[in-house]
Amino acid sequence: MNIQVVNFEEKFAMISELHSYKVIAQMNDCHFKLVRMKREFIWHSHPETDEVFMIIDGSMQIDLRDRTLTLKQGEMVVIPKGIEHKPSSREECKILLIEPAGTINTGNAGGNLTDVELEWI
Amino acid sequence: MNIQVVNFEEKFAMISELHSYKVIAQMNDCHFKLVRMKREFIWHSHPETDEVFMIIDGSMQIDLRDRTLTLKQGEMVVIPKGIEHKPSSREECKILLIEPAGTINTGNAGGNLTDVELEWI
Repeated sequence: MNIQVVNFEEKFAMISELHSYKVIAQMNDCHFKLVRMKREFIWHSHPETDEVFMIIDGSMQIDLRDRTLTLKQGEMVVIPKGIEHKPSSREECKILLIEPAGTINTGNAGGNLTDVELEWI
Repeated sequence: MNIQVVNFEEKFAMISELHSYKVIAQMNDCHFKLVRMKREFIWHSHPETDEVFMIIDGSMQIDLRDRTLTLKQGEMVVIPKGIEHKPSSREECKILLIEPAGTINTGNAGGNLTDVELEWI
């Protein structure tokens, strides 16, 4: 049985590129994914699932259609399924995403920011 | 739509008792629960689900039948379903648990440490 303690800082040190999602753990059908973000993402939603953003380092914004959320280290939010959102960060933000395996980063929007190759680290 | 940013430190400040599990978020069928632990827990397993321990502050041990895991702030582990484990901490440890709603803290073992009243904060 492969039971490994995951250290976020050590895992982030293994990620050289921005915007490359890396799977670090799976709980039942859910993937835990790390990403280093520094960009304005696109409006999208996930019609089939809720999605968790947890900030490991830095800060980010998530625009909703009626307001903007600001998250910093030590904070998380659940974006409910079907809710349009647009994540962004001016400075690099280290994020833990929790969502079912197979969830696409661009959700219903598609397009050339879609990250199709998910690597475990 | 009630979308709230959760700050772990603020939520822990609302928890006055040790070993009282508080729900802070739900993603699909999964609860995110905080607990302040300072005790040796009991051997148990969850036959129906994996379980995530994430350390927000402090450190803890999780005994497995063949070894002991040590986790500190900024680390997490997935205990697979059916795997016997015994969490413990000598000093207070602030933990985020992620597991399906309805998962019982004592799993298959039951007994008087079972926490039956789950409160949202």
